[in-house]
Amino acid sequence: MSCPTATTLPLPNGALPTVGLGCWKLSDPENIVGKAIEKGWRHIDSACDYGNEVEVGRGIKKGLEATGLKRSDIFVTSKLWNTYHRPEHVEAACRKTLSDLGLDYLDLYLIHFPIPLKYVPFESRYPPEWTFDPEGGNVMVPDDVGISETWEAMEMLVSKGLVKDIGVANFNAALLLELLKKSKIKPAVNQIELHPHLSQNRLVEFCKGKGITVTGFSPLGSGSYVELGMDNGQGIGLLQDPLILSLASKHSKSPAQILLRWGVQRGTAIIPKTSSERRLRENLDLFDFELEEEDVEGIEGLNRNMRYNDPGVFCKGMGGDYPIWD
Amino acid sequence: MSCPTATTLPLPNGALPTVGLGCWKLSDPENIVGKAIEKGWRHIDSACDYGNEVEVGRGIKKGLEATGLKRSDIFVTSKLWNTYHRPEHVEAACRKTLSDLGLDYLDLYLIHFPIPLKYVPFESRYPPEWTFDPEGGNVMVPDDVGISETWEAMEMLVSKGLVKDIGVANFNAALLLELLKKSKIKPAVNQIELHPHLSQNRLVEFCKGKGITVTGFSPLGSGSYVELGMDNGQGIGLLQDPLILSLASKHSKSPAQILLRWGVQRGTAIIPKTSSERRLRENLDLFDFELEEEDVEGIEGLNRNMRYNDPGVFCKGMGGDYPIWD
Repeated sequence: MSCPTATTLPLPNGALPTVGLGCWKLSDPENIVGKAIEKGWRHIDSACDYGNEVEVGRGIKKGLEATGLKRSDIFVTSKLWNTYHRPEHVEAACRKTLSDLGLDYLDLYLIHFPIPLKYVPFESRYPPEWTFDPEGGNVMVPDDVGISETWEAMEMLVSKGLVKDIGVANFNAALLLELLKKSKIKPAVNQIELHPHLSQNRLVEFCKGKGITVTGFSPLGSGSYVELGMDNGQGIGLLQDPLILSLASKHSKSPAQILLRWGVQRGTAIIPKTSSERRLRENLDLFDFELEEEDVEGIEGLNRNMRYNDPGVFCKGMGGDYPIWD
Repeated sequence: MSCPTATTLPLPNGALPTVGLGCWKLSDPENIVGKAIEKGWRHIDSACDYGNEVEVGRGIKKGLEATGLKRSDIFVTSKLWNTYHRPEHVEAACRKTLSDLGLDYLDLYLIHFPIPLKYVPFESRYPPEWTFDPEGGNVMVPDDVGISETWEAMEMLVSKGLVKDIGVANFNAALLLELLKKSKIKPAVNQIELHPHLSQNRLVEFCKGKGITVTGFSPLGSGSYVELGMDNGQGIGLLQDPLILSLASKHSKSPAQILLRWGVQRGTAIIPKTSSERRLRENLDLFDFELEEEDVEGIEGLNRNMRYNDPGVFCKGMGGDYPIWD
């Protein structure tokens, strides 16, 4: 393990707390984000597409007020949505997110998916989601913006001081290789789905080798996808997996803590979501124990390349063809 | 099955015979290619990197002379090597291949891998393979040529009449999406590893949906990789697989014919290699029987995403980091 107990990972212009609060589908974000900051959370993972940046921003304000912390004491990530990939829309999208969050800079701004879609003006629909065509119809409309075009506009955000670091999400190694060829600023982060059912060891190692920090989303597995019907019939398998339960017993931790510890111990950041105050405490409490080598080997054995957040599947249902992991 | 018995697949400027002779590691290419044409083969799959284009070219000449066929009666593919991705080297590399093959045009020219490496002049080493640095040392030296830069130069080859169609090889869907955004000429073909242990259904379907014809290399599985130590300990599994053996018995065909029929029946081209005259007959004799739906379902069940030709593995041993399938 390269950094078994790191609580932050270095970025070019900042330090990424290894445990962040994922805001996708977060219930009552204003309350939970505020409470999270009070309980010691320092990393908030937001996105235009989550449709709750105003509430997340209020939560951040509450948390800072309640704790007396400064903006610079916390780390806020957001993400550029697919409909804003054209260079002329990137800054406006970032400024809209900043305005919604009530912030004057982001610590990290990511290209959310390598899937450019037709531009949707803010006033037509915000967030635009996947299938809104301002000219009519609920259809997915591709756009042909090159990755490096969008990236150049992302680089401008850094020089303008709107964001400290920039990165990507849902990029495979082949796309990263393509992006790295032409980028003046290397992507600081690649945020990808990671849990023991989808360990992606080779992609994680590749990113590390290129100096790209990896953040794992859905670190607890399929939970968020069950209600969306995106769990491939796997239910909430990982939290009930016999090995995970036995490791929880062995280390006197919860199954969730075993899964999350595995994430931070392998040198990635993780962004679990919780809407429960109890779990806010629990999910941050990962630094007073260590998985042994045999524990890690066991967890590695659970990998079955089971991807829940797969545009190759869910876009198909919306009329789009983006098997970006195939 | 979209075209169960097609013997050619349409390309923008030609027709790709579904069964081609793979020339990688072909023993005695002059003799075998000549014999193949005599025995009815009309599609020869060559590449600079195979290091035998002069001999393959002699075989083509022999075959045409022996049969009285014209150049236009056969289909010849070759591939741009990694060290010639810079736009200024693409035409020279194509002309070198044409000169070696003794041809004045190619039916199809592919980017061999999405892995640009530092230029190696012809006179320094040809073919340059993976790890020759003309400035000294046997090391893999990356180059940062964008895919679309190389592609534009490929497009020029079509307008100059040097090649009829252009395509790629070893491209995943994410890279194809990126390439499709900016290409004036769409890639006609994606040549990828395909056999029942690596069926890649989703990538095949994606390509078909985009009008990209798929050619499967290594259609018999791991055979070519055993001697290179690239078989992951899987040996020559597919040709001895009990299901394949039972289907061979059922249809009174050889196991190889079952594997190859599966390839053509799913609407892909295949390019088996053989250095045996008997197998030259056998491998072409695929159009007088049909796998039933239950046969195909059984074969689909053999998939285990087992990739033998994986730059993410073999480049590592040579000091390069190209996990293009991760």
